[in-house]
Amino acid sequence: MSKNRMEAFSDGVLAIIITIMVLELKRPREGEFAALRPMLPALSSYILSFVYVGIYWNNHHHLLHATKRVSGGVLWANLHLLFWLSLFPVSTAWIGETRGMPAPTAAYGFVLLMAAIAYYVLQNVIIANQGSSSALREALGADWKGKLSPVIYLAAIAISFAYPWISIALYTGAALMWVIPDRRIERFLREHGTAEP
Amino acid sequence: MSKNRMEAFSDGVLAIIITIMVLELKRPREGEFAALRPMLPALSSYILSFVYVGIYWNNHHHLLHATKRVSGGVLWANLHLLFWLSLFPVSTAWIGETRGMPAPTAAYGFVLLMAAIAYYVLQNVIIANQGSSSALREALGADWKGKLSPVIYLAAIAISFAYPWISIALYTGAALMWVIPDRRIERFLREHGTAEP
Amino acid sequence: MSKNRMEAFSDGVLAIIITIMVLELKRPREGEFAALRPMLPALSSYILSFVYVGIYWNNHHHLLHATKRVSGGVLWANLHLLFWLSLFPVSTAWIGETRGMPAPTAAYGFVLLMAAIAYYVLQNVIIANQGSSSALREALGADWKGKLSPVIYLAAIAISFAYPWISIALYTGAALMWVIPDRRIERFLREHGTAEP
Amino acid sequence: MSKNRMEAFSDGVLAIIITIMVLELKRPREGEFAALRPMLPALSSYILSFVYVGIYWNNHHHLLHATKRVSGGVLWANLHLLFWLSLFPVSTAWIGETRGMPAPTAAYGFVLLMAAIAYYVLQNVIIANQGSSSALREALGADWKGKLSPVIYLAAIAISFAYPWISIALYTGAALMWVIPDRRIERFLREHGTAEP
Repeated sequence: MSKNRMEAFSDGVLAIIITIMVLELKRPREGEFAALRPMLPALSSYILSFVYVGIYWNNHHHLLHATKRVSGGVLWANLHLLFWLSLFPVSTAWIGETRGMPAPTAAYGFVLLMAAIAYYVLQNVIIANQGSSSALREALGADWKGKLSPVIYLAAIAISFAYPWISIALYTGAALMWVIPDRRIERFLREHGTAEP
Repeated sequence: MSKNRMEAFSDGVLAIIITIMVLELKRPREGEFAALRPMLPALSSYILSFVYVGIYWNNHHHLLHATKRVSGGVLWANLHLLFWLSLFPVSTAWIGETRGMPAPTAAYGFVLLMAAIAYYVLQNVIIANQGSSSALREALGADWKGKLSPVIYLAAIAISFAYPWISIALYTGAALMWVIPDRRIERFLREHGTAEP
Repeated sequence: MSKNRMEAFSDGVLAIIITIMVLELKRPREGEFAALRPMLPALSSYILSFVYVGIYWNNHHHLLHATKRVSGGVLWANLHLLFWLSLFPVSTAWIGETRGMPAPTAAYGFVLLMAAIAYYVLQNVIIANQGSSSALREALGADWKGKLSPVIYLAAIAISFAYPWISIALYTGAALMWVIPDRRIERFLREHGTAEP
Repeated sequence: MSKNRMEAFSDGVLAIIITIMVLELKRPREGEFAALRPMLPALSSYILSFVYVGIYWNNHHHLLHATKRVSGGVLWANLHLLFWLSLFPVSTAWIGETRGMPAPTAAYGFVLLMAAIAYYVLQNVIIANQGSSSALREALGADWKGKLSPVIYLAAIAISFAYPWISIALYTGAALMWVIPDRRIERFLREHGTAEP
């Protein structure tokens, strides 16, 4: 099945995106614990982006699990998503190095926003591909997290020009929103016998 | 089946090629929006090359989907293609840094040309491997895109010595040619029940 | 089965972690054999970390082999493990560059400790997921290596403030403990018809 | 089957090894064709090492194709091979930068030699694992290429102290020996219905 190969390629790209982010974690030059302190901003932006890549990998995993047919349109929508995710490392490095400044904070949110839109497009291309009685569409339900996230990113971008730290808190909150209640939804969906987005 | 492993290895290499290109997108040093401007040439050459890698991945995906047997010749023809694709990052970085100059523009076209030839060779090795009544050969049909592309690259290389920007427009046009009408061909082929190259 | 994709993603990340470590092995600048000598500390810390990644890959391989169902909790526990493993390259580079100093030696042990804990958590999430009569739990048996390792790492961290070289010997010993008696356990488990952790 | 995962991990590592080598191909700083000339030594050592990785990937592919069971010993023998292959990038970069000098030429041969030995060990661990009537052992036949290669590498290492260019010619010749007659052996083996090493 060709779906497998699209998964494999996506896994490869996602695995590498995480890698490039970790390359920004330069080792301290001195052998003292104090030399770890300047790493902290880069480390915390790495953690946040690692969680985001994890969320995307998890959701992508579930999304394709519920996908039966893969068309050329799906392949391109997937590449489009991977493109925006491939900009995570550079935006993570920028915000990690210049934390607290408006421009990198807004740019980080912009990449998050575009990735969320690309994911939404991919989801809809897959649903359109499956016909109107799509099991995936039912499984998605209201998809409130998918709809709320872009709003949060947009708000955080606007706020970043005045209070970048609030924006960073919003990015963190949006990530937690995806991580925490996952299990509840999963249980709900398991009872209804469908894969979860 | 050994075909799977050739796909997996190719996916890995293609995923990594994209990565190395993204490594050229160095984060801005300052935390101002103005610091993003110098990134634009590198970003746009990254986008163009990302689309090309996407096209090759898509076509490779379809090509192997229609492949049944893998021989030693196919493995080497595939490695030959991956070799030329592995030169994308360095040629992308060169054109991204020195945009508008003849030498990097011609070199970029040369790598595109050699990759197109390598793809053509791979395609024919697979067809030869499958015998004369190859389903792949029928599916390919006239393969006008596969034949037109090298001509465009050759023309662009020649033009680059005088008008590099026209060459860049030609590279972009050739990429769009592959991306846009994909769906139509796919539908056509689906009706005839064969995988698409 | 979705387990396959979790394996594929983990393989990708582990393969890349090894890579980033090898990037620290900078080629000598001069063409003399004497130029190899400064590489030796980096090379030996690379070898130690390569063996550790190999151990994790091996154990992860066996662990998932004995896993039937994958839940959202398992996916996140796996990502948590990959996060700590992704810090191997930077801690390896630090200890390789400043060998014999307390801080990098303790930090190296800290990353080993957290990875061991993350592995333990992953193991237990999988067992909890499988229900009380888990074949995996039986296969694990007393799991003395899994329980002894964190103790060794903790001791090595404490010792590193006074005698970093003893800590490095302990890290090496713990790695050998995992590598050497593998075959015996495997044979034992094969006779009892279960996969081995 | 656990064999699949060992293949996937090996593919990932081999794909990444190729990548790291390509990272040494730094883009020219100026936009002139003349700026390509200093790249030539690095490019030609890249090509040679790319071919070697291709040979190893091809042989590894065939070897595992003929493998049925994977034990802990096989996993470690495979990791041992990957370790030596992971030193290709640094030895390639060294010889590419200082071509014509004895030390990097000998070091390049040493890494080739150790990889050949590691491959030989892996092959024998697999055969031992399969029992005395191993189909793989029959398929290997005299395995003259596997036996001749280490001799060539040893000779080249010795010669490199006096005539490094002869050693480089020997490395190239040994690579060609593996690439060229592949098809003939394959045909021979296909007639006898066994996978080929």
